[in-house]
Amino acid sequence: MKIRLEMGDGVGVVVTLEGERGKPQPNALDHLLALVADDFDKVNDVILKRMTSDIDLIPQLAGHIIASGGKRLRPLLLLAAAQMCGYSGDRHVRLAASVEFIHTATLLHDDVVDDSGLRRGQQTANVVWGNQASVLVGDFLFSRAFQLMVEDGSLSVLAILSNASAVIAEGEVLQLMTSNDTETTEDAYLKVIASKTAALFASACRVGAVVANRPRAEEEALDSFGRNLGIAFQLVDDALDYSARQATLGKTVGDDFREGKITLPVVLAFRRGSPEERTFWRRCLEDMKQEDGDLEHAVSLMMAHDSLRDTVERARHYGAIARDALAIFPDCPAKRALAGVVDFCIERAY
Amino acid sequence: MKIRLEMGDGVGVVVTLEGERGKPQPNALDHLLALVADDFDKVNDVILKRMTSDIDLIPQLAGHIIASGGKRLRPLLLLAAAQMCGYSGDRHVRLAASVEFIHTATLLHDDVVDDSGLRRGQQTANVVWGNQASVLVGDFLFSRAFQLMVEDGSLSVLAILSNASAVIAEGEVLQLMTSNDTETTEDAYLKVIASKTAALFASACRVGAVVANRPRAEEEALDSFGRNLGIAFQLVDDALDYSARQATLGKTVGDDFREGKITLPVVLAFRRGSPEERTFWRRCLEDMKQEDGDLEHAVSLMMAHDSLRDTVERARHYGAIARDALAIFPDCPAKRALAGVVDFCIERAY
Repeated sequence: MKIRLEMGDGVGVVVTLEGERGKPQPNALDHLLALVADDFDKVNDVILKRMTSDIDLIPQLAGHIIASGGKRLRPLLLLAAAQMCGYSGDRHVRLAASVEFIHTATLLHDDVVDDSGLRRGQQTANVVWGNQASVLVGDFLFSRAFQLMVEDGSLSVLAILSNASAVIAEGEVLQLMTSNDTETTEDAYLKVIASKTAALFASACRVGAVVANRPRAEEEALDSFGRNLGIAFQLVDDALDYSARQATLGKTVGDDFREGKITLPVVLAFRRGSPEERTFWRRCLEDMKQEDGDLEHAVSLMMAHDSLRDTVERARHYGAIARDALAIFPDCPAKRALAGVVDFCIERAY
Repeated sequence: MKIRLEMGDGVGVVVTLEGERGKPQPNALDHLLALVADDFDKVNDVILKRMTSDIDLIPQLAGHIIASGGKRLRPLLLLAAAQMCGYSGDRHVRLAASVEFIHTATLLHDDVVDDSGLRRGQQTANVVWGNQASVLVGDFLFSRAFQLMVEDGSLSVLAILSNASAVIAEGEVLQLMTSNDTETTEDAYLKVIASKTAALFASACRVGAVVANRPRAEEEALDSFGRNLGIAFQLVDDALDYSARQATLGKTVGDDFREGKITLPVVLAFRRGSPEERTFWRRCLEDMKQEDGDLEHAVSLMMAHDSLRDTVERARHYGAIARDALAIFPDCPAKRALAGVVDFCIERAY
């Protein structure tokens, strides 16, 4: 299979991937959605009902980011995991909404921290209402998430999601500290994404087993599935940030570059680069002295060193672990749909 | 009794308060502290132990604000309330630390939202480490607070403090929305402080009854005590912001004025002022066009309209309600110490 990684100006480079497994499943997310459609509608109802407040600005701002068309992948994973575990109650609906609130709160704070202007093709809440409101409404949604968990009443779930929240915050701080540091190792980068992204994927999936009262081994299998899927997801996200494919997702290209964020494509290109190239990376990402054409040059260096291709290769590795983590579950539509999400997360790179 | 409310430049105005009740109890907080000293030491241990993280910046930043010498009034209230309720276990220690973490998280976010440079005479964390780190470490401490509650294992406590957290965030958003609006009513102002400050005071006190397994009436009495005390506390805080007494607390004078925050001293002075005076308030706090001497003029208008004195009078009203809320508890050292805190909160105005 050939993949085409394009730069912002439309100049494309065709890269051939070897060792590819599985066929692209462009509709994997639709399959998942169809499988849990009724529950998903209920989740959306809970989200809409529980983001309300007497303070008008809260539902306005929260509605803006929630309505901006995210995939709601985390609630979907929770619902599908519960279904795969044979769960037939309705606790998972409220908890899926809780997970989405935690995610939304972190997005609001992320956009403030990164000073981002666009998310999914729309102006970010911090641009429309200011950083102050974004910080505070994030706090509100985070509190709301815990209120929903308390209403559910499971201390196990509260433990899983409060731990995940602390780990997410640690990951965000670690990311902030490695910002602008081109010497960041692949291990340090992996620690960041395992915390800031994969922890919530893992928890969302694990909660599916907890509500279904399944044995520890299944909880852990779902945790591993979610964690490795989350790492794969973030790796592809970070590769996409240097690809024109990104533009079709409504995101601007090169955000990470402009913010001096050190993601795996940079880590690999920097380590594989010549002394002159390293000087280039330091100027752009440490000294933050960027000029016209720098982003294009960065992408060309990534191409020369296969760092985008290899980032996606790394994602395949974690995706494979995620798929194998599902082995202990008997075959069923939910299991197939979850495996399909792994393919979706990786194939969206192309 | 005469009180001296001084302006930033040392020009003082002596105001005589009428209808004053009770004697100042300068050592009320020390009494409280002595009463729960052993438990308080344990709370501080938990705070220090649980603000740790592999990510060095987290304990550095959290330690900076936690060590900066706050009174830790909320944990003290929780401990004393538990003692008054006859509690003899140790659950209150962890929960008091949890309450302090919630409070610290809101302070970190507040300083970002208000763009504050000083807190208790020290540079704020956002000045030392930047807004980004303050937002994220606030999120971490907030998550940690929930982890501590989960370890305690009481869904009642989790409900009380997750509700309080949501209400605090709502209060902060409401305050942001009424910023720079000189038409803010006293009712709207009260709603802000009841949410952003009094909700956590109320919850801290209520938790004291919950851990002791006391009947609903005592829970509610402690909730009312904490809520009214919190309102009184904030009213005095807002009066102090226009008083040189403030400087001795290590805070700068006139922060609220410079930020265009509409607190009760402003609400009263604006409503009682002439059309010319209202034009002055609008220029300074709505248009944010402030000149040298404006703060001093603002204080002189507050003096002319007794708005600082009456803000403290309002505080006395809520303080009286707080004191009466304790009536259902039998006399004991903890009860007397809690009543003393009401006096402390009001007398620190002088």
